[in-house]
Amino acid sequence: MQTNILSAKNHPGPYRISNCGLLSFYFILFLFRPAMSHENSPLDLHYGMFIPTIDKQGTSEQKQNWLHLSESLKIVGTYAQTELGHGTFIRGLETTATYDPKTKEFILDSPTLTSKKYWPGCLGKTSNHCVVMAQLYTQGKSHGPHMFMVQIRSMEDHSVLPGIEVGVIGNKFGYGTNDNGFLSFDKLRIPRENMLMRYSQVHEDGTYVKPQNAKLAYGSMVLIRSSIVSDAARGLAQACVISIRYSAVRRQTEAYPGGEEPQILDYQTQQYRLFPLLASAYSLQLAGKYVFNTYLEVNDQIEKGNLESMPELHALSAGLKAFSTYEASAGIEVCRICCGGHGYSQASGLPKIYVDVVPGCTYEGENTVMMLQTARYLMKCYSRAKQGQKLPGFVQYIGQNLNKKSCMSEEVALGCLVMAYEHRAARLVEAAAMRMQSLIQGGKKQHEAWNGSSVQLFWAAKAHCHLFCVKNFVDAIQAKSLSSKTVTVMKSVCQLYGVHGILENLGEFMQDGFFSGEQVGYLQRKMLALFENIRPNAVALVDAFDYPDMVLGSCLGRYDGQVYQALYDYAKSAPMNQTEIHSTYYKHLKPLINPETTSDAMQFAKL
Amino acid sequence: MQTNILSAKNHPGPYRISNCGLLSFYFILFLFRPAMSHENSPLDLHYGMFIPTIDKQGTSEQKQNWLHLSESLKIVGTYAQTELGHGTFIRGLETTATYDPKTKEFILDSPTLTSKKYWPGCLGKTSNHCVVMAQLYTQGKSHGPHMFMVQIRSMEDHSVLPGIEVGVIGNKFGYGTNDNGFLSFDKLRIPRENMLMRYSQVHEDGTYVKPQNAKLAYGSMVLIRSSIVSDAARGLAQACVISIRYSAVRRQTEAYPGGEEPQILDYQTQQYRLFPLLASAYSLQLAGKYVFNTYLEVNDQIEKGNLESMPELHALSAGLKAFSTYEASAGIEVCRICCGGHGYSQASGLPKIYVDVVPGCTYEGENTVMMLQTARYLMKCYSRAKQGQKLPGFVQYIGQNLNKKSCMSEEVALGCLVMAYEHRAARLVEAAAMRMQSLIQGGKKQHEAWNGSSVQLFWAAKAHCHLFCVKNFVDAIQAKSLSSKTVTVMKSVCQLYGVHGILENLGEFMQDGFFSGEQVGYLQRKMLALFENIRPNAVALVDAFDYPDMVLGSCLGRYDGQVYQALYDYAKSAPMNQTEIHSTYYKHLKPLINPETTSDAMQFAKL
Repeated sequence: MQTNILSAKNHPGPYRISNCGLLSFYFILFLFRPAMSHENSPLDLHYGMFIPTIDKQGTSEQKQNWLHLSESLKIVGTYAQTELGHGTFIRGLETTATYDPKTKEFILDSPTLTSKKYWPGCLGKTSNHCVVMAQLYTQGKSHGPHMFMVQIRSMEDHSVLPGIEVGVIGNKFGYGTNDNGFLSFDKLRIPRENMLMRYSQVHEDGTYVKPQNAKLAYGSMVLIRSSIVSDAARGLAQACVISIRYSAVRRQTEAYPGGEEPQILDYQTQQYRLFPLLASAYSLQLAGKYVFNTYLEVNDQIEKGNLESMPELHALSAGLKAFSTYEASAGIEVCRICCGGHGYSQASGLPKIYVDVVPGCTYEGENTVMMLQTARYLMKCYSRAKQGQKLPGFVQYIGQNLNKKSCMSEEVALGCLVMAYEHRAARLVEAAAMRMQSLIQGGKKQHEAWNGSSVQLFWAAKAHCHLFCVKNFVDAIQAKSLSSKTVTVMKSVCQLYGVHGILENLGEFMQDGFFSGEQVGYLQRKMLALFENIRPNAVALVDAFDYPDMVLGSCLGRYDGQVYQALYDYAKSAPMNQTEIHSTYYKHLKPLINPETTSDAMQFAKL
Repeated sequence: MQTNILSAKNHPGPYRISNCGLLSFYFILFLFRPAMSHENSPLDLHYGMFIPTIDKQGTSEQKQNWLHLSESLKIVGTYAQTELGHGTFIRGLETTATYDPKTKEFILDSPTLTSKKYWPGCLGKTSNHCVVMAQLYTQGKSHGPHMFMVQIRSMEDHSVLPGIEVGVIGNKFGYGTNDNGFLSFDKLRIPRENMLMRYSQVHEDGTYVKPQNAKLAYGSMVLIRSSIVSDAARGLAQACVISIRYSAVRRQTEAYPGGEEPQILDYQTQQYRLFPLLASAYSLQLAGKYVFNTYLEVNDQIEKGNLESMPELHALSAGLKAFSTYEASAGIEVCRICCGGHGYSQASGLPKIYVDVVPGCTYEGENTVMMLQTARYLMKCYSRAKQGQKLPGFVQYIGQNLNKKSCMSEEVALGCLVMAYEHRAARLVEAAAMRMQSLIQGGKKQHEAWNGSSVQLFWAAKAHCHLFCVKNFVDAIQAKSLSSKTVTVMKSVCQLYGVHGILENLGEFMQDGFFSGEQVGYLQRKMLALFENIRPNAVALVDAFDYPDMVLGSCLGRYDGQVYQALYDYAKSAPMNQTEIHSTYYKHLKPLINPETTSDAMQFAKL
């Protein structure tokens, strides 16, 4: 018989830094883990999702029962939501939890192939418990997805419990050190008390009590998404450190016949590829920080049930999650390719950073869906603006007069940059709204019109996020706490962020004649001039991120610049070099090269 | 004593399909290897580079000595050029080959850390010979890089020969099945006859005879780059097959409350991401084919020393190599991300395709350098055009009158698309030339002006390649051999390629007012309409690439659509699932979870 550790009671709760219950100490640790190396831990989900979920979704009794056990690693858990056939659309999940009032148990079941849990991290081999998201059925009615605490492996010997199938899902692009798993249930019974009942409950008789506010979950989504923005920013920053340092060491192609081979960072094309990414890394770090700080500010209000400030922050965090992971992923690959051949070696550290960051485009809400969530909020704002209502803080630009021209001059003032991004976002929001409207007027149903406008909605949401990043960057460098020297350097970085973003998306700023061709010329020349401004500070600007060599794990990004010795040492230490002749020589090559000294059996094997 | 197999003579040469000597049967095999799976072979460089190099660069005696031995795999070889500190700039190589007339030998040496050969495929463990690119010194003078045949391992037992250090370079992003290696020489002596002497020679007394035409090597570069264009196109096509088939199986998010979850391919945002890539895959395949066929046409002339048609083709192939590998790499990742979480599993086959294609951005000429080679040719053409000279074939658009407006109407005629791309390329070529000119007039030296204009030169070269791809696609669908049904379908794909490319680079088409805002509206609406046109044929359009499941190696791209069963089977077959409890449980988890049953030693280890 297995011990059900969950029945143990009355463990003292550990010290909490916040008594609001929504914010666990562990999640904070997870979010602000110091600049860490790119190895995922099989306990990441335990600390990052399992414990915070108990903390946020559990009743005080459940917390008392489970938190201490989890914190002392008696229980090792994860969070199982995604299924083989179901991802971002949580209402589509198929795993069922049907309440049986006779035994006061839930019956967990995986009725179909596509209902098997698939992808949860740390699930395949590590966890002995998990929080399972399943469709709740009670008294013959469905109540949508709810969370259940489920023991999946024995506490005595870690064997898989009856009624459960669990294993790893096999090789992935990255995350090699994380045992992402699959899990299915064959009518597994768990006690009623295992449903996480802070917000909704099932009584002993099967009566369902719905949560007071279904949007309470928004808070933790904002928190997680702000952490993804910061993760993406950190990945891009680290890639910039590696690529910019290496570009200051690497030399290539004599500039003129007989001349020295310049540092590749002196090539304008290399600056064009790397410096805007450096600017992005700063901008995204600031954006992640803003969302997190704003979350903290509104957190108390949320706890009190005041969700007024939530929709704007929720929409921003959804879009920024998508915007930042797209930008960072693509940027990390550019950094890698900027390191030439050596960037392709794992010794560069860059492939690891990429495969670590790019799944952020998918997890915690697929990026397109995220962008469209933001767009949905923008459409609401647009319609409110057209009705003459005042919009909250950052979205006040929506509905503004579009019949104006850019104030851009040769100097490229920060104000004119922000105004340009506001104009573009306002225009794209309006264009998407007009498209929606015209499709509906043409007889399309609401959802058809939405789908038929979704490319333009996507553009609008992206422009909104981009505007936010530019504006937030400008605000940050205008903070009074910065020294004038810092401001001088960072202003160039900030200008580059703004200018480059316009030039990369130029059509969206020009379609309505907002910019003249002449003004575009100012921006192009400014961009090239900014490269020259930034070049002398480029290495210092990446040093300032302050990632130690151990964190970067890169032969190319070393602080001491000894990249070639490091690459050579890396090669020498490869396991395959520990023998002079590889076993495949005897098996495959010798029978071809030297058949006379190869045995008959080998000759035969060759056929 | 080691047998020097290279001294063996008079082996009969094998059947050659071309007696021109420039085109080896093996290279053709390599180039047109059927749609193959994504595993690199440790013999790829033997067939793809080693044998063709002997064939192209060897004298008839050398060919007679070495080709048969290589073809029968007695000699297994590779091609060693890149060094730890030197890549695309071949003149910067540091490995030396100094002729000693007393012994009639070359002394191969790696004088510095950065001179070690690094990256050559199949070098670390497989090859017993290689062609080495080294700086030739004779009679006290340097003559630049030349090729030498070098035995590196014993023919008897595969041991590394004295004077040589060789090994693998360690883990890479991909190419796990290829033993990319490093190699260095400590004053290794090789016979004079080992220099590949078809075009340049060193006589017994040390006299150097230079090649008649230094540009003869262009032919093989064109050939290799056209093969990279085709490789990139194939990778993108396969990614499209997987992603589009899966998008027709996968369903997500009810379209309206209570409605069915649509196939994700019905979402406009998914079409927006995938259909332009499908169009690109067709376009790039056609481009690769064009360059190869054109190469064949001019090949005979090259052999006869007539290089007139070469510069245009050389410039086109360099730029297209860069254009196609950038487009395909980025596109493959979009396809992967479009498959949601499952795209991140190696089961999708997509990570493998990506890591296989993306190094094409770097090898055989770093992409930025390639684009700037194309730009250099465009600048020459521009200057000729301004002098009133007639330009050859495809570059006749350069120098055209830029004071015109687009003929674009709602219908989006193919001719107006081509004209738009011609206008944009012509304008960007002129803008780059003007920038160069103004920097020189401002007192910059030629090479400073070049560097200071290189971002704009890059834009010009990219626009040139893009124009080529559009024009070549349009030409292809106007070929008389196509049925009218095929033309109807393919015209939509071709239009989408053109329209989407304009919208993605809109600023470059608008900066001078070539397009009006209204015309941009036509293009945007056309793009959305084309998605609807293409949707019913999308799966057929990827089926038409005709890649069997075995080649795709993808659970998601299966022809039969049974993706979930395949993913589940993939998971079940993971080696880690062959045991119920992973060894790490005993080592790490048990002492935490169950300390009372863990030995003292384990407890101690835990501390």
